[in-house]
Amino acid sequence: MTKPAYAAVDWGTSSFRLWLMDAEDTVLAERRSGEGMTVAAKTGFEEVLSAHLGALAAPLDLPAIVCGMAGARQGWIEAGYITVPAPLTAVLAGAVRVVGPTREVHILPGLAQRHADAPDVMRGEETQLLGALRQGADSQQLVCMPGTHSKWVTATGGVVSGFSTYMTGEMFDLLSKHSVLAHSILDAKTFDPDQPGFLSAVQAAFQTPQRASNLLFTIRSGSLLQDLSATDAAGRLSGTLIGLEIAGAVNAAVDIPLIRLVASGKLQELYESAFSHLSLAFKAIDADEAVRQGLAAAAHKILLAMPEERS
Amino acid sequence: MTKPAYAAVDWGTSSFRLWLMDAEDTVLAERRSGEGMTVAAKTGFEEVLSAHLGALAAPLDLPAIVCGMAGARQGWIEAGYITVPAPLTAVLAGAVRVVGPTREVHILPGLAQRHADAPDVMRGEETQLLGALRQGADSQQLVCMPGTHSKWVTATGGVVSGFSTYMTGEMFDLLSKHSVLAHSILDAKTFDPDQPGFLSAVQAAFQTPQRASNLLFTIRSGSLLQDLSATDAAGRLSGTLIGLEIAGAVNAAVDIPLIRLVASGKLQELYESAFSHLSLAFKAIDADEAVRQGLAAAAHKILLAMPEERS
Repeated sequence: MTKPAYAAVDWGTSSFRLWLMDAEDTVLAERRSGEGMTVAAKTGFEEVLSAHLGALAAPLDLPAIVCGMAGARQGWIEAGYITVPAPLTAVLAGAVRVVGPTREVHILPGLAQRHADAPDVMRGEETQLLGALRQGADSQQLVCMPGTHSKWVTATGGVVSGFSTYMTGEMFDLLSKHSVLAHSILDAKTFDPDQPGFLSAVQAAFQTPQRASNLLFTIRSGSLLQDLSATDAAGRLSGTLIGLEIAGAVNAAVDIPLIRLVASGKLQELYESAFSHLSLAFKAIDADEAVRQGLAAAAHKILLAMPEERS
Repeated sequence: MTKPAYAAVDWGTSSFRLWLMDAEDTVLAERRSGEGMTVAAKTGFEEVLSAHLGALAAPLDLPAIVCGMAGARQGWIEAGYITVPAPLTAVLAGAVRVVGPTREVHILPGLAQRHADAPDVMRGEETQLLGALRQGADSQQLVCMPGTHSKWVTATGGVVSGFSTYMTGEMFDLLSKHSVLAHSILDAKTFDPDQPGFLSAVQAAFQTPQRASNLLFTIRSGSLLQDLSATDAAGRLSGTLIGLEIAGAVNAAVDIPLIRLVASGKLQELYESAFSHLSLAFKAIDADEAVRQGLAAAAHKILLAMPEERS
């Protein structure tokens, strides 16, 4: 095994992911756990990080670069926000060093959009973006990062012009577990991304987004009147929320650019299926790979550069 | 006190309301409790009804007319659904008599819309409608009945042509208590129906309903970036969901008819304020009065008519 050069950490609200990286950005080892910000705020951020690096027998002075909720006000140390429009590289310059640990630890800031009518924030996704847009491009790029709070970003030539958050994942969770729809979805099995109910719901919400909260209720009525199965009901719920999100994100665009979909696993499959069904062109980028590339870019700028290169 | 002629009961999922009525439909006494279907399914429907009527010293053989969830499959006895399009009077003909109690008890059926793309159901609101539309009218009427699950109904000459349910009230409850927005709303006080945040949210969701799940997240971002107060956040959440509902309900209409708003209390004030802000003409009808009038119409047809008039 080559010598580790740094630790790359994606520290979310409820998840912790760490990669041990060498100087060429090869992954030497990986750790995943549920010790997100919520847990670590109680057990100690430094303790969680040290325990995982210790388990990998990493040197005690190995530096770490961190993104995500560890930089929130309730996190390890507040890393603030870079206000957009801004070049994405401002995220690197805005990293905050944690005071205390013997090892060098830097946390990347999030992005904030301070429009009066469309305030928005992200924390963690800016690092995925750093990986996904790393090559840079002169034409406008539209990036979709689905999740609990899906983020849609527009960027041109490495400058983020704006972004919007959609509560898609959280609403799926709330409605499927705690609303009247829970009765209809209770026994759902995993549904296929090309399930007709999912796709027709995507289409209906995309075409008539104003009906969104009515389309949601038809899931309940469908199970009462039309013997809609629990698995189809789950597909309809997911499709309605994803279709509504896409309607909001691409509606304003006259010429919809290629959508750069930064996702992985089941979520990637669902969005790919939805985009295909709506005839929207997209390019998939693995979300784990993107966040690692973003952290790597930050590590080279902040931790590994020659002193004169460091900002 | 004149002699009671019948009991009128609105029996919802979580609430029970009973009015003791004379033959001229004057309210002699009223009872309200939390013994809705959920509670009564455990403690016994007959027991709950008898206890309330006993407390009013009503005769043991006083007949009762009931609407609402007591007629659901999980209720006292299943009263089924009348399929629309249908004349509203079909609800009276479709009443189901409960077998067992010594007193005569009839439960009114709900309405079902069996469209493949827009299945829908109501139970209880059809009786409000019976009261609100009682006079009949030849032109098309648009009725809005806000609540946990808001119902919008179109009817012409006493015939219900269709209806749509919006999950507005339930989504407000879920999002304000259990989502990331709960942090922003936790300490909210009652907001005014003419609060600027409420009205601007109504407007934004009405004009750009496709942004709905993004507009919801701006409540969180607004409290992080713009010091949005908890009370303003609650107003924004309510306004976004009500604006989305109105967008869905009136969007299809070319000439929006006068909206008959069947509501009471705070909800009535909010919808009146929203309609005024959107320059939509409306007429308010008290929801309690409407359900009582509907139950009275049913009582006269089913319980009090001369034998030859009874269907």
